[in-house]
Amino acid sequence: VQELEMKLEALEKGGYEHFMLKEIYEQPRSIRDSMRGRLRPNSDQVELGGIRDYIKKFVNAKRIIILGCGTSWHAGLVGEYLFEDIARIPVEVEYASEFRYRNPVIYEDDVVIAISQSGETADTLAAIELAKSKGATIIGICNVIGSSIPRATHAGSYTHAGPEIGVASTKAFTAQVTVLTLMALHVAHQKGSITNQRLHRLLIELDSIPDKVQKVLDQNEKIKYIAEIYKDVHNALYLGRGYNFPVALEGALKLKEISYIHAEGYPAAEMKHGPIALIDEEMPCFVIAPRAGAYDKIVSNIQEVKARKGKIIAIVTEGEKLIKEMADHTIEIPDTEECLMPLISVIPLQLLSYHIAVMRGCNVDQPRNLAKSVTVE
Amino acid sequence: VQELEMKLEALEKGGYEHFMLKEIYEQPRSIRDSMRGRLRPNSDQVELGGIRDYIKKFVNAKRIIILGCGTSWHAGLVGEYLFEDIARIPVEVEYASEFRYRNPVIYEDDVVIAISQSGETADTLAAIELAKSKGATIIGICNVIGSSIPRATHAGSYTHAGPEIGVASTKAFTAQVTVLTLMALHVAHQKGSITNQRLHRLLIELDSIPDKVQKVLDQNEKIKYIAEIYKDVHNALYLGRGYNFPVALEGALKLKEISYIHAEGYPAAEMKHGPIALIDEEMPCFVIAPRAGAYDKIVSNIQEVKARKGKIIAIVTEGEKLIKEMADHTIEIPDTEECLMPLISVIPLQLLSYHIAVMRGCNVDQPRNLAKSVTVE
Repeated sequence: VQELEMKLEALEKGGYEHFMLKEIYEQPRSIRDSMRGRLRPNSDQVELGGIRDYIKKFVNAKRIIILGCGTSWHAGLVGEYLFEDIARIPVEVEYASEFRYRNPVIYEDDVVIAISQSGETADTLAAIELAKSKGATIIGICNVIGSSIPRATHAGSYTHAGPEIGVASTKAFTAQVTVLTLMALHVAHQKGSITNQRLHRLLIELDSIPDKVQKVLDQNEKIKYIAEIYKDVHNALYLGRGYNFPVALEGALKLKEISYIHAEGYPAAEMKHGPIALIDEEMPCFVIAPRAGAYDKIVSNIQEVKARKGKIIAIVTEGEKLIKEMADHTIEIPDTEECLMPLISVIPLQLLSYHIAVMRGCNVDQPRNLAKSVTVE
Repeated sequence: VQELEMKLEALEKGGYEHFMLKEIYEQPRSIRDSMRGRLRPNSDQVELGGIRDYIKKFVNAKRIIILGCGTSWHAGLVGEYLFEDIARIPVEVEYASEFRYRNPVIYEDDVVIAISQSGETADTLAAIELAKSKGATIIGICNVIGSSIPRATHAGSYTHAGPEIGVASTKAFTAQVTVLTLMALHVAHQKGSITNQRLHRLLIELDSIPDKVQKVLDQNEKIKYIAEIYKDVHNALYLGRGYNFPVALEGALKLKEISYIHAEGYPAAEMKHGPIALIDEEMPCFVIAPRAGAYDKIVSNIQEVKARKGKIIAIVTEGEKLIKEMADHTIEIPDTEECLMPLISVIPLQLLSYHIAVMRGCNVDQPRNLAKSVTVE
């Protein structure tokens, strides 16, 4: 029986050594699946059937509260930038576990977006019940159909990432960000807070994201080479600004979860307010530094780290020259609109964590101490 | 000349080995100074002259945005809990450096509170100018009188912590939290969102905080003993919930800044969503676990860490029994109202960082790579 199970598992891994690697590679498809039937670039339209009946609540919302834990909380932070930037609605992102215990202010015209891959996260579910009892509208973004959170919400949009087996979330994250992007664009279009021109440009660009993700995956060998160099570090910092700040947090979390290296994410400008004291020859900094965004500022941040002899591994836009001269290593990613960058810039960080963990002999798919979905409080 | 300067410096240190230690010990007085003339426990009144003309803006505010960097950002997080809990106004806390670059939604009826010890923090100043240009009301909380931020704001309340020389902020943090507490109570009283009974209780309790801080300082020898045990660690986690979550961040930042140990703060419930993978015999966890707050939940978090053989150093309420049996070390602090706890619970973490850094031979008052006030972007 055991042999058969082994074979079945190997079959399910589709030729990949681990579920996590398989799921990282599935992202061009899972992002596409999460857009299918929703994104219509030719007619400049976004359609999210799941929230159709609640679109007025979104358009009239004074505030959006996004709730999540772990990776879903990081996706929520990207959502904050998206909704404020595109739909012009103030957003508050909260750890579900903090929100539920702290007597938060919740109004009836608040829209709450709850994010959870499994749809079973206990703290998020409890936070939903609290917000519901105050009369807020609850929208779910989950991956597992028919799970507890979709049943507890008023409406929602599923991510269509397919089953995620690896404990460290990868394709669920990009699917969540994809749905948040569609949702923000949909609301912005209905609200009239985005020009048709910008909407058109973003929809065309969004449609090209799966191919651009594939381009990053195609650099796997180079990423593996960099992983080999840094596999024995004890600590790491991940830095980003704007839309890439949550990606820095997510990159650090991946490394923590599966390689047990103490990695920490920071908004790059906060470095000078403390963490830069940690920088020495031993400390690698993974910096997300694409052209789109506060490019000049992140270049300064890289210079600050180099001046203290820190190691820089930079995620840069194809064709980048300046940062290539300063950084110890660079990984090039395709250019895109600033607000869509997290879908691309997170990919090399997922691969880096994966390879480092494998090289350290860690159990990538089932890291110590962690469960796939946290159904206890 | 140098000899004279040395003597002058020694004089200014008032017998303490470092400015940081002097400033930690000054906190009963600096907290008292920040309340003087403002807190009137006998008449159940709080008076903040600096914001008198803007109290209606606060009372009518749909939202408060708190801006800061580093330690001031941590004080802002405590402010979020205070204003939401007591004054029932939704609060968004932002890194000044992120806020200014991300096209944030700002309304004319928003009140922005900008926090900065020096009053010269470049990113915070730029964020203020952005919010001002959108018509928001800007309130400052600064320590240095006549500095740039107080001059750029509409109004504000100074912290009266006195000059802070140590680069790692200590007494400025508790002074900021003190002023935020007074501000939240003042607004709540004017708004009628707090009962007279609760206001009375909180004012009496606030008045007793300096003495309780002194009681923590009196345990310096025990804290030094614990510092000796953990001085050689490479990593540390700091965990807290609710009002003590920002304290966990602040405790970790202190250790980073002056001892160059990679310490990270986390809301305790988020442990299960990733960081718990880091836990082994080598990883000390500093847990802020007073009776007031989600006590049962934090006890569970401690059990989870102990089940993975992590070391627990717990900050507990005087007379605590249960956690004493589980933890490797405990530091007892006086009981107080949950919302005032940060003023007390941060003290042992400041002392721990100080002693660990001294034992490691670090330059406590002028840590490498750091400036006292960050006047560049």
